[in-house]
Formats: sequence, structure tokens, C-alpha cells
Amino acid sequence: MKITANNPNRKSWLHVEKDSDFPIQNIPFGVFLTKDDITTIGTRIGNYVIDLAALQQLGYFEGIPLTEDIFMQDTLNDFIADGRTTWRLVRNRIAEIFDAENNKLKDNEAHKEIVIFTVDEIEMLLPVSIGDYTDFYSSKDHATNVGTMFRDPENALLPNWLHIPVGYHGRSSSVVVSGTKIRRPWGQTMPQGAETPVFGPTKLLDFEVEMGFITTDANDLGKVIPIEEARSYIFGMVILNDWSARDIQKWEYVPLGPFLAKNFATTISAWVVTLDALEPFKVAGVEQVPEPLPYLKEDGLNSFDIHLETFIKPKKEEEKLVSHTNFKNLYWSISQQLAHQTVNGCNVRSGDLYGSGTISGKEKNSYGSMLELTWKGTQPLVMSDGTERKFINDGDSVIMRGYCEKDQIRIGFGECIGKIKKARKLNFDKDV
Amino acid sequence: MKITANNPNRKSWLHVEKDSDFPIQNIPFGVFLTKDDITTIGTRIGNYVIDLAALQQLGYFEGIPLTEDIFMQDTLNDFIADGRTTWRLVRNRIAEIFDAENNKLKDNEAHKEIVIFTVDEIEMLLPVSIGDYTDFYSSKDHATNVGTMFRDPENALLPNWLHIPVGYHGRSSSVVVSGTKIRRPWGQTMPQGAETPVFGPTKLLDFEVEMGFITTDANDLGKVIPIEEARSYIFGMVILNDWSARDIQKWEYVPLGPFLAKNFATTISAWVVTLDALEPFKVAGVEQVPEPLPYLKEDGLNSFDIHLETFIKPKKEEEKLVSHTNFKNLYWSISQQLAHQTVNGCNVRSGDLYGSGTISGKEKNSYGSMLELTWKGTQPLVMSDGTERKFINDGDSVIMRGYCEKDQIRIGFGECIGKIKKARKLNFDKDV
Repeated sequence: MKITANNPNRKSWLHVEKDSDFPIQNIPFGVFLTKDDITTIGTRIGNYVIDLAALQQLGYFEGIPLTEDIFMQDTLNDFIADGRTTWRLVRNRIAEIFDAENNKLKDNEAHKEIVIFTVDEIEMLLPVSIGDYTDFYSSKDHATNVGTMFRDPENALLPNWLHIPVGYHGRSSSVVVSGTKIRRPWGQTMPQGAETPVFGPTKLLDFEVEMGFITTDANDLGKVIPIEEARSYIFGMVILNDWSARDIQKWEYVPLGPFLAKNFATTISAWVVTLDALEPFKVAGVEQVPEPLPYLKEDGLNSFDIHLETFIKPKKEEEKLVSHTNFKNLYWSISQQLAHQTVNGCNVRSGDLYGSGTISGKEKNSYGSMLELTWKGTQPLVMSDGTERKFINDGDSVIMRGYCEKDQIRIGFGECIGKIKKARKLNFDKDV
Repeated sequence: MKITANNPNRKSWLHVEKDSDFPIQNIPFGVFLTKDDITTIGTRIGNYVIDLAALQQLGYFEGIPLTEDIFMQDTLNDFIADGRTTWRLVRNRIAEIFDAENNKLKDNEAHKEIVIFTVDEIEMLLPVSIGDYTDFYSSKDHATNVGTMFRDPENALLPNWLHIPVGYHGRSSSVVVSGTKIRRPWGQTMPQGAETPVFGPTKLLDFEVEMGFITTDANDLGKVIPIEEARSYIFGMVILNDWSARDIQKWEYVPLGPFLAKNFATTISAWVVTLDALEPFKVAGVEQVPEPLPYLKEDGLNSFDIHLETFIKPKKEEEKLVSHTNFKNLYWSISQQLAHQTVNGCNVRSGDLYGSGTISGKEKNSYGSMLELTWKGTQPLVMSDGTERKFINDGDSVIMRGYCEKDQIRIGFGECIGKIKKARKLNFDKDV
């Protein structure tokens, strides 16, 4: 089916500012709370949020086989489970409804009042109920940086890294939507030179800039998704901040991987940008040497040209750009990740989330975490107010923005923001 | 509130065989499919399964504040979310209804026909929709065995092990109910001496005998569950088989932990035995030296005396006992595990599953995996038909049984069974 929603020449009758992430060619999906406290599924054009449940009730999706109330939901899961054909039909229809040449809704003030909100009238919610969350480790530059800092610069990459899209399971319950404040976590650490571990708030709170993809129902347990089919099960993408407590991580992660160092929070952006909308921005990924095993081999353009910028904003100060990287820096593609995840028969469900792993490039200003940007805290960054940062302070906001741009079309992800609250006071009736 | 359901002197008017896991003192909870294809919540006494939704409709739970249809569900999640007071009221009431002295249901043939099934008339389903699944690594003997085999016998335990209930996140989607057949997984491995990895069905398929506990909604993100309160958020326990592919695990697990070696399947027993029913079987856990940090310190009896037996049954042959271990062998308690999981503010939800990690004892016949029982395959076990096993073969069933026994009361978990199907044929259009 043709993705007519991507037509680069289409204009909307809704006003879209020049640098907006959300031209009529984007049409992402999200969940929002109206000012009347109703939860519904929506899309966004410019600074307008459109209630798809209302559009459906008013008959604008006539002819598309949709179950009643598919958009009157508090998650996208059921809509995503309807599969790619449905996503395309809906996205194409939305493009038509808001096409500058189409007067049907444009001229119906009563309908517009029910359907269209401005962004500041509504509150965005977590777009999916996440069944399982996997986090990969697919940036060669990131893995090399970490291996250089913590192991051996001569053998920075572990032996399996070039053969396996290394990944691990993360915590679903603590994935939160952009804007949710993040509490600095407590944890056990083993300070350099200490003989016994200590307990306290993390001193090395970090971000990791990643992208996440969200799947539809794909395979029954025991069945495999061939790499050629992997993309058809991917609904769309979000920006993902894999918050990390480096001191907790260092002490806990051998031999079973990161646990409490990561599962206190993961932030994702609110709008899921469909793979269809990203189609015009496909590019070749990083060359893979040695050649991957056959189940991981793929042809064609397997990455996307997505700029990713990370800013730190100290309390009441201006934000400062600290990292500018790109999704195309990743070594392993989303198809390879999903083919790998399922090659043992592991089943994939609607609403599952897959993080890319920290996206670092080769240049120092393209590193995707404070750990790398400050090289373990040895080279602090200077903020807009002149203060230095080795890691993230209480009161700081970390803001990530992502966008594709080509031929004067910009498809963006909006923002992925989290502000750090100081650690909770803990009172143990003991000798803490 | 008194747990009257635990009254050791109570008899049921339903017949219970002498060695049954399910006397009237047990009253576990599960989900089953009736012969009319209706999914409902039930309990079990002897070889009878009782439809709690039918009991509720007939008014037998009058006076207990329950939402309508709380038992007409395909998971226990909503019932578990109602909290401990409700679980106790319901369990106490069920004990009364089936008490030999109570004729109300006993003498009502019409009601009995609607409410009571025999176990062979119904099919057990997965009891909960699992939000997150954490697997711990809490047996000191198991961790010591693994460390001795793969690292250094002199320093078998890693430095963090005695300070942290080490754990990692597992895959929720592939947790299946006892009886589900398990497909031998494919995966990438690096054979000893090879220069490049190979792709094929695992050659080293293993079980791990564990117990799992299931939580209710406990804490909002950012809040901590103190160890003193941890148990009140734990609904009950199941037997858990953490299927493992040792060759895949060895190649993939550094540095982020097990992934495809584990997430192809995890089997749990169908009946959730409540912590209340296990109360009479509390015992002291393993002595902890050094003393844990204050947030992990607890008083009183913190473990349970639960026998765990694992059998291997080759196709068409008799089963053979290969391991007899006990839950009380665990070093870290369930309260310590839950307090640790949440000390960083990680939020816990109704239906979350927490595995104990492989439960090994000190004696060789109490080891909880083939890896340990055959010492990496160097000491094969002999089956009932005279064949040898280093790991698990196609057609083998692995059967785990668990029970507590004291003063002639036996509280059991039923069985946790999985039979291995041979690997799927995979056709890649490439040079596999």
C-alpha cells in the first residue's frame, strides 16, 4: 500500500511553524489527557493535538476497518496490534483530512472544537503499556569507549560484540513519559579503596541518549522472525533516555548485568513516530566487518539519518548542548536487533520496547553519556551558568531532541525531558 | 486478621488423598479453562477445582467487599491488587465453605454442579499477567559451584555476592504455565577452539530449579519498600524452571548478563500458594556473614522449609529423581530480594514475578541444575532406561515438585512440567 501520508508536497490547513517537528508528513501517535480529564489517542500537527477517537466518532475514518473505540484507549497497544496495513490506512486518512485542499473538517467549526486542541491544553501520557523492555548495546563507539575506560584499551570490544547485537532485559514498570521528574536513587556502592560497601544516593547520575522502537504482536513462542520480515513488525520509534547510576552499576553488574543502576527510571518521548514516516530518511548503516552470521545478514538501507541532540539545563539557567550524535552511528540495525531477539523463539508482543543502547559517534562531542563526554569525570563540561558538570546534579534537566531533515521536510520526535529531584530522605531504624 | 484457613484440625467434606498437595489448609489460587471454554479463577482441594466466580455469583462470599466479577478474569492480577486483607478474607471463607462441619454447599447438588470440577475436566492457564520478571541468584552453593567451574575455585564468589542479592531482569512474554511444551532454541555459540561463532540448536539445554514469588501493587516510582513491609506485598509462591541454554549463555553473557540463553522459556507451576498458607513452615534462613547493610537486615524466621524435587522423564520411560533440594538453602530471603529491588525507587506492580535463582544445597544430589549435577557434563546421570544425560535431550520431560510437610499437614505446589520438543527447522536462503 502506498504511504500517501509521506507526500512531501502536501500542506496542512493547520498552521505549522517552519522548524516544527510535526509537519503533516509526520503524523505520529500518542496518548493524551484532555482538559476534561479524558484519556484518548491522538496525533499532532504543528502545535495542535488531534483527538483520533473524536475523529472516528464523527465518521472521518469511515471505510477503514477499525474496531469501535480503538482510539478511546489509554494506550496504543490495541491499535498497534491491528498491524501495519491499519496504521497506514489511518495515517494516510489523517493526511487527507488535514490537507490544505480538503475543506470537510476545516470548515466545520463544531467538529474542530471537539477534535483539535493546542499542545498546552493537554497532557501527554506514556504511549504504550510496555510488556517487555529490551535494551541493546549497539554503538561500536560507545562500547569501545566503555571498554577503553573500564577494561583494556587494546581490547576494548569484547569478543562477542562484533557477532551479536548484545542486549539485556530492562524494567518495564519504571519506563516513564517525557516530563516525569526523576528521583535520584539510593544504592549500594563500593568506593575505590573501601573494604565494605556503602549505602547512599548515587553520586554518579548519568543519562544515555538512545532511540527506542516499539513492536506489534509478531510471533508465537517458539517461532522465529526472519530478518527480512523484522521491520514489518515495528510500529515506530521514540527518543529514550536510559538513566544510569554509574557507581551502583560498577559494583553490581558482574556477572548478571545492570539492574538497580538502571531500573529506577527510563524516559521516552511521548510521540511515537512511525517507521513509515521515517522511510524517506533511510541510509546505510555502519559497515559490518566481519560479516554477520546469515540470520543477521540484511540488504539495503538499514539505518536512519536521525540527529540527536542532548542538552543540560541547570535549574533556572539556560540549556547547554552537550552532545550531538546521530542514529546512523549504530552498528547493529533495528532489524538485526529484532531478528536476534527472536531467533531462539522468544515471543514479541504489541507494545514491547527496544532501546538501541547509547548512541555515540566518533567525535568527542557526539558521545552519548556524561561518562564518555567527561571521560569518567576527568574532563568536566561547563554549563551555561559557568558551573561544571562531571555527572548530573539535582535540579538539572536533561533534554533530548531528535529529528530527520531532508529536502526541506523535517520529521521530529519532540523532546524527551527529565528533571532530577534530590534523593528521598530514608530513615532506617538502624545505623544508616 | 487471623488466618483461620490454616487451622490444622479442619477437614473438608471434599475427599483429599493422604499425600495430596492440596488439603483444605492450602487453598491456592489459579486460573483455569472449564470444559465449556470459560476462563475463571479457582482454588483446589484434593483433586477438585473450585470455580470462585461461580461461588461469588451464588452469594458464598457475601459480606466480603469484592468487586463484581473479580474472579471472572483470565488472570489473578486484579484480585492480587485488592491486597492482603482481601486475600485472607477470601481464603478464610473458602475454608469455611468446604469445612466438613458446613452443609450449606455440601448439601446443595445444583450449586455443587456449577462450582466443582475434577482436575481432569479443566485446563490450567498462566495464573498472572506478568508485568516484570526479575530473576535473582540467591543460592550461595549454586553461585559457588558456577564460580568454581567457570572462574576460580579459590575465589568462586564474586566480591559483591555476599553484600547484594544479585539479580537481573528476565523476559515476561515467555513465562509459560506448567505443561507447555518447550522448543529447543537456536542460537549463536562459540565452540571451544573455534575462531568464529556458529549457529545451531543449543547442545547444552538445562533446567534450573527455583521458586518464584508474585507481588501486589506496592510502591509508586521513587518510593522504597522497607524490608519490614516487604512480605505484606507478596501474594504467594510458585515453582519456577528457569530453562537455560548453557552454550548460548557462555558466549553472550559478558558484560550485560544472560539474554537469549534464558528468554526462550520459563515455566511456572499453575497454582499460586499464598504466603499465608506457608506461614506454619517458616524457618531461619542461612546465616549471613558478613552482616548485610541495614536496608537488608531483618529479624525473625525469614525462610521456608520447602522440599523441591526434580525428575527427568525420558520419552515413554519412567521418571528419575535427579535433585532433591530445599528452599531454605537460599542465602537471601524474599524480603531481602524485594527490599533490594525497590531501594532505588523501582516500582513493583500486581502480577510481577521474582525468581529465587537456582536452589542448590551443599550435597551433590541437592544441586539445582544439570550443569552442577553432571559437573559441566563430566559426570553424566543415568536415567531409568539406562541412557545417560549430560544435559536435557529432545523428548525428555523435566518435572519439579515442591511441598512443605509438618505435623501431618502437607502444603504442596503441584507440579512444574515441561517437555522438550526438538528444534524447529530453520531455512535461511543463505549459507546456513
